[in-house]
Amino acid sequence: MALTNSQDRQLRERARAVIPNGMYGHQSVALLPDVYPQFFAKAEGAHLWDVDGNRYLDFMCGYGPNLFGYCHPRIDAAAAAQQKLGDAMTGPGPAMVAFAEKLVSLVTHADWAMFCKNGTDATTMAMMIARQHTGRRKIVVAKGAYHGAAPWCTPNPAGTVAEDRAHLLTCIYNDSESLDAAVREAGDDLAGIFASPFKHDAFADQSLPERAYAMRARELADRTGALLIVDDVRAGLRLARDCSWSTVSVKPDLSCWGKDIANGYPISALLGAEKARSAAGSIYVTGSFWFAAVAMAAGVATLEEIETSDYLEKTVRLGEKLRLGLSSLSKTHDFSIRQTGPAQMPLILFDEDPDYRVGYGWSAEMVKRGIYVHPWHNMFLCAAMTDADIDAALNAADDSFKALRANFSTLAPHPGLAAMLKSRRR
Amino acid sequence: MALTNSQDRQLRERARAVIPNGMYGHQSVALLPDVYPQFFAKAEGAHLWDVDGNRYLDFMCGYGPNLFGYCHPRIDAAAAAQQKLGDAMTGPGPAMVAFAEKLVSLVTHADWAMFCKNGTDATTMAMMIARQHTGRRKIVVAKGAYHGAAPWCTPNPAGTVAEDRAHLLTCIYNDSESLDAAVREAGDDLAGIFASPFKHDAFADQSLPERAYAMRARELADRTGALLIVDDVRAGLRLARDCSWSTVSVKPDLSCWGKDIANGYPISALLGAEKARSAAGSIYVTGSFWFAAVAMAAGVATLEEIETSDYLEKTVRLGEKLRLGLSSLSKTHDFSIRQTGPAQMPLILFDEDPDYRVGYGWSAEMVKRGIYVHPWHNMFLCAAMTDADIDAALNAADDSFKALRANFSTLAPHPGLAAMLKSRRR
Repeated sequence: MALTNSQDRQLRERARAVIPNGMYGHQSVALLPDVYPQFFAKAEGAHLWDVDGNRYLDFMCGYGPNLFGYCHPRIDAAAAAQQKLGDAMTGPGPAMVAFAEKLVSLVTHADWAMFCKNGTDATTMAMMIARQHTGRRKIVVAKGAYHGAAPWCTPNPAGTVAEDRAHLLTCIYNDSESLDAAVREAGDDLAGIFASPFKHDAFADQSLPERAYAMRARELADRTGALLIVDDVRAGLRLARDCSWSTVSVKPDLSCWGKDIANGYPISALLGAEKARSAAGSIYVTGSFWFAAVAMAAGVATLEEIETSDYLEKTVRLGEKLRLGLSSLSKTHDFSIRQTGPAQMPLILFDEDPDYRVGYGWSAEMVKRGIYVHPWHNMFLCAAMTDADIDAALNAADDSFKALRANFSTLAPHPGLAAMLKSRRR
Repeated sequence: MALTNSQDRQLRERARAVIPNGMYGHQSVALLPDVYPQFFAKAEGAHLWDVDGNRYLDFMCGYGPNLFGYCHPRIDAAAAAQQKLGDAMTGPGPAMVAFAEKLVSLVTHADWAMFCKNGTDATTMAMMIARQHTGRRKIVVAKGAYHGAAPWCTPNPAGTVAEDRAHLLTCIYNDSESLDAAVREAGDDLAGIFASPFKHDAFADQSLPERAYAMRARELADRTGALLIVDDVRAGLRLARDCSWSTVSVKPDLSCWGKDIANGYPISALLGAEKARSAAGSIYVTGSFWFAAVAMAAGVATLEEIETSDYLEKTVRLGEKLRLGLSSLSKTHDFSIRQTGPAQMPLILFDEDPDYRVGYGWSAEMVKRGIYVHPWHNMFLCAAMTDADIDAALNAADDSFKALRANFSTLAPHPGLAAMLKSRRR
């Protein structure tokens, strides 16, 4: 079984000439098995086509933005209607107010909204607001948690200086004692506590938030006056029609959103509670396209789908079906896998696979069979997926486990991955 | 002469409930005369319509993004065609390579490109690459120059910590001795020298770059091994079909782009010379929508317009016509104004106007007459403007100077502006 890839190879060669390393950031395939395409020609619903015409059921959903399906007719129509009126004008359009109102009405803890373009914009604004609100400096983050790629949070220190993280303290996710210790270390200088909605670090098993940990974070913030920040950029709207920590009944002061809130149109958001409004209004943050209307119109349409459709229940149900099926198939083929995190944001890792070669081998077999899975980053289901899609994925998985068994002795570690992992584990 | 504004007032009231201060960032009208609308319903070519249906000839061009006219048929068609295929997919589309190739071919100093979403992303990446390339920390920026709104560069220190600017040194734009002094102060720790393409700070007369200053910056970078960075986010493509410093025959190592490179579609870029490629390839930067295809397709179409149209010559010619006309009218009405910077990016300030009340008064009169000008930020002409538009602007200016003279004794400083200026001049 082989994919054609001549167009992709040609584009990669052209890209290498004009883009450092041929690609950068989270969508570079440099750390994926060789069979993964780098460039895509089109997308529709739950499917992607690469530039060679190979079709995939896409379990990455653009690394998060695709929630209702690519090229969703109603959302795209709302965006196109706004595009005809105007996008990046000399001021925002009415859609900005409508989108803010909808988010504030949907998200329990939120009294106000600010929009930006990157998840990193929202997390950086949250940090600034926590510092401005408290007049203090220290920020607690969980070790290994991803909060963006600005100098203060990028997982790779290249190009940063020590001062970028001068006031960052770390704890261990779901470990209240370590959180206590970090807060103690901050002393009277604690500005904010960041929390991922659940532990969704790359290369590691995911963990749902323990209610005791979330409550402890809330308690510590209340006691110290620091702000509690949930970074819901990746998981927002995928666990609840509310902030993800509503699942453990804990309200943050600030929450960061992005990726799927406009079903792929470029916009992110920071939501906040009343007490943080004044600080939010006194920092200076802005961006060339932050007030552009098209993504806001798409956001309004996306939230209407959130409110009126069963997208959440559907993605959970399909995710559980996939999880159960894979669990059974892996046993049949005598592989031991760990499926962690919410079923609708699955991560699949293989036991006894310290250099990920087994997971890479299986993922590559899946991709060859038209099922785009990721060997070390959490995946996403979208509401455009059907039972038939999951059946197709499970059929491919059956064959992929079989092929993996047959090729087992030939599996080798991915060149470059080991070095990258080592540099991240500084 | 009065504009209707009931829809705008209603939207502002709704916005105040769900957005801190009702608006934030550079498109907030909080520091503009009261008559300025906050919300816009549509835009086409060189014109804007506010939500009450008032039409304006728009000399802000979205604060830069609008170069060829709002809703440009050919660029929008290219974007719409890509939108039908897919935007934020699980990897980039071929348009990313085409856009990078076109930029690299257009911009003399550039051998590679990276894309992002905010101008601030590009300037922050430039800083990181300079540090990674040199293994050093110090960055020289001109005092008062705007390079974005991240903690290291935002013009308002609220929410930032001292460490954010720990390694920033300042010089005075166009003052080679002050640049020498800053470089001396950096000692053997100099990573990069930032330069605006010309001095386009808010609230102050603009200055074109002096060739001696630009050459000195190049010389100092070469001598120390630091990287020279031109932040062309605001002015890129408006002074030249190349980096703006091509006008003084100086090539930077890195240049930052955004705003107009896709005629308003949300994308920014960092371009670099070969020697910085390796450092660029070793930092980790990314964003949820950085690889999305629609803005890249729009970018390709925009660069085709750049290559094939007389947009540059036209905006210069119309800008000069406007400047000459205003100069003459101001004298007729016995006002003394300063028009600085490139004619196609005009800034108009009044003499003997320390609190800007005269400029505010005139700008408000212009806006009431359907000509959207800005009292303290540089403006922009776009290629969709016509001689008739400039004639209309000059007619309105004649009446506005007259009204200003009639109302002169009633002019008052803008509430809030003085405090803001004071806080910026820390």
